[in-house]
Amino acid sequence: MLERFELQGKDTVRITERNLREMVVSIFEKSGVPQEDCQLAGDVLVTADLRGVTSHGVSNLLRGYMEMYKYGLVNPKPLWRILRESPTTASIDCDEGLGIIIAPKAMEIAIEKARRVGIGMVTVMNGRHLGMASYHAMLALKNNMIGMCMTSTTPYMVPTFGAEARLGTNPIAVAVPADKEPPFVYDAATTVIANGKQILARRLGIKLLPGWVADANGTPIMEEVVPPPAGMDGIFPYIDRLLPLGSTREMGSHKGYGLAGVVEVFSSILTGGGYSVKNGENNCNHCVIAYNIESFMDTTEFKRTMDEWLGMLKSTKPAPGHDRVLYPGQLEAEHEVECKVKGIPLHREVIEWFRNTCDDLHVPCKI
Amino acid sequence: MLERFELQGKDTVRITERNLREMVVSIFEKSGVPQEDCQLAGDVLVTADLRGVTSHGVSNLLRGYMEMYKYGLVNPKPLWRILRESPTTASIDCDEGLGIIIAPKAMEIAIEKARRVGIGMVTVMNGRHLGMASYHAMLALKNNMIGMCMTSTTPYMVPTFGAEARLGTNPIAVAVPADKEPPFVYDAATTVIANGKQILARRLGIKLLPGWVADANGTPIMEEVVPPPAGMDGIFPYIDRLLPLGSTREMGSHKGYGLAGVVEVFSSILTGGGYSVKNGENNCNHCVIAYNIESFMDTTEFKRTMDEWLGMLKSTKPAPGHDRVLYPGQLEAEHEVECKVKGIPLHREVIEWFRNTCDDLHVPCKI
Repeated sequence: MLERFELQGKDTVRITERNLREMVVSIFEKSGVPQEDCQLAGDVLVTADLRGVTSHGVSNLLRGYMEMYKYGLVNPKPLWRILRESPTTASIDCDEGLGIIIAPKAMEIAIEKARRVGIGMVTVMNGRHLGMASYHAMLALKNNMIGMCMTSTTPYMVPTFGAEARLGTNPIAVAVPADKEPPFVYDAATTVIANGKQILARRLGIKLLPGWVADANGTPIMEEVVPPPAGMDGIFPYIDRLLPLGSTREMGSHKGYGLAGVVEVFSSILTGGGYSVKNGENNCNHCVIAYNIESFMDTTEFKRTMDEWLGMLKSTKPAPGHDRVLYPGQLEAEHEVECKVKGIPLHREVIEWFRNTCDDLHVPCKI
Repeated sequence: MLERFELQGKDTVRITERNLREMVVSIFEKSGVPQEDCQLAGDVLVTADLRGVTSHGVSNLLRGYMEMYKYGLVNPKPLWRILRESPTTASIDCDEGLGIIIAPKAMEIAIEKARRVGIGMVTVMNGRHLGMASYHAMLALKNNMIGMCMTSTTPYMVPTFGAEARLGTNPIAVAVPADKEPPFVYDAATTVIANGKQILARRLGIKLLPGWVADANGTPIMEEVVPPPAGMDGIFPYIDRLLPLGSTREMGSHKGYGLAGVVEVFSSILTGGGYSVKNGENNCNHCVIAYNIESFMDTTEFKRTMDEWLGMLKSTKPAPGHDRVLYPGQLEAEHEVECKVKGIPLHREVIEWFRNTCDDLHVPCKI
């Protein structure tokens, strides 16, 4: 959750959800992706922007995806198939298709299984980038289910006491329906910061704070670091040295590191698709799970209790210097309401990219 | 994992596993717990000590359990029953029975369901303290399954930006079998430190480090704090002000806080048993899950890949000042091998308690 930067002021322009969606879909189509899949991809990316999860929205991800299609690193027309199946499980070979397109389909299979037997879980091997993990988890919500999604990513995490990156940023997303309150939506990398945040920090010239990255020897950097300025080429020096949640052993980095391991087991090793270090860049395997609430208890009572519990969390007395206590997904829901009305803010550098790209691809530019 | 202190030197004496087990079982029997359940309780506690998880072993937990039985806060002969059941799920009312005794039984139900349909998940409401969560998760290992266990505990965690405790320390345990390597066993509170660690720190006079606790207003304390000396009575001032994993917002405490929320949803709200703040002290609800590896992929290949992956993690080049990189469960497995030979170290203050308690209860003292 909250892998966000406030995008506002003179460097941003707002675009309507509809216009952004149309541009994204058109750009995907130019990569040879089937029309229906383009709509799905557009929905995943634009939903991230609507929810303020800029690190996983169009600005950070779309251009990378286009490059991957261009260089054949991702399959625009994957022939994905189920390798093994049980009443509760399915194991999918993704055929190098983009996760943002295949994970929602995997989640629909999981939901259907959960509807029949209580729980459905689908693993996805041989995959590519997942986008915002909570998108896929949230598909469970309208079915009165709890959704979960995990993905194993390129190895950027340095284990506790280690000097080399050995695990991905490996996020976990969990979406839980409530009644009147916006849903509880947890979505967090198991590193202190998501990799996208570094990329965004670089673009916006924002400092990396203490406890975010390790130095070249693996020692946690516990002071502020200024990243290279936006537009500078070359390898970002901290890109493969992200610290696990907890930052240092004393503050629990072994817990963040171990949790990344859990994610790697479920979303990579258990898919039959190996593990991050072996698979290298671009390969991302996934796991989605749906839990049918009615199999455990009365759904109405569950959602009523969720409202009560979320209300309790929101009403927590704030610490000095803070206005309020939030629950996961609350700010994102508020952001979505605002953006549906005011439009989605994009940084001028991203707008520039859209204009150039639309021009290159002969796609109508909507901004 | 690793909620441990090294117990060694002049303040400790080693006791054989067998002798410790016999004493613990005899003490449980004196509380009116049926013989078979006493054996189970003894196994959970002694396994924690064998694995070096002192915070969840006999020294920290046994005397508390005995007090709870004495004051009627836990039911020695619970009539637990299944309230709702599906092919993959069961919802248990625990009848105020101790979690260390009922969770293993719940896990056996989950394992049986996973054997039949791929996944089994059992929620447990109206429960009491769970002990070491990984004990229950590890029951899956010998069945070639991945085990998971979560529990919602007394509210000691201050949410990000909050001034009041609103969630439990809410640990997650995940046990994953390998072939030749000791299993991957993750077991961690979603707070920076487990509550038991505070109790142990107090007994041993160890300082609380930066980022572990908040002050009375909820502001994270980012310097060392000396806890009150061992033996001092009264309320421990930081006991209900534990910080979420991540310590501060800048270092990702919202991720630890949110994760505690996820655990509370699965192991409390979804059980039908409410939530921590509502339930108050002593009430702990649980959730156990078993995933049958063979439903996803070939078990032999999975375990072989686990060996390879764990070997890769262990072989990570260490950062300056460190000898080696560990994986979750590795140190605990090594500790167990050592303790099986040398005996289990107990602090002299704990030995004193055993001698007095055995004397009071007319139970043979084995140390």
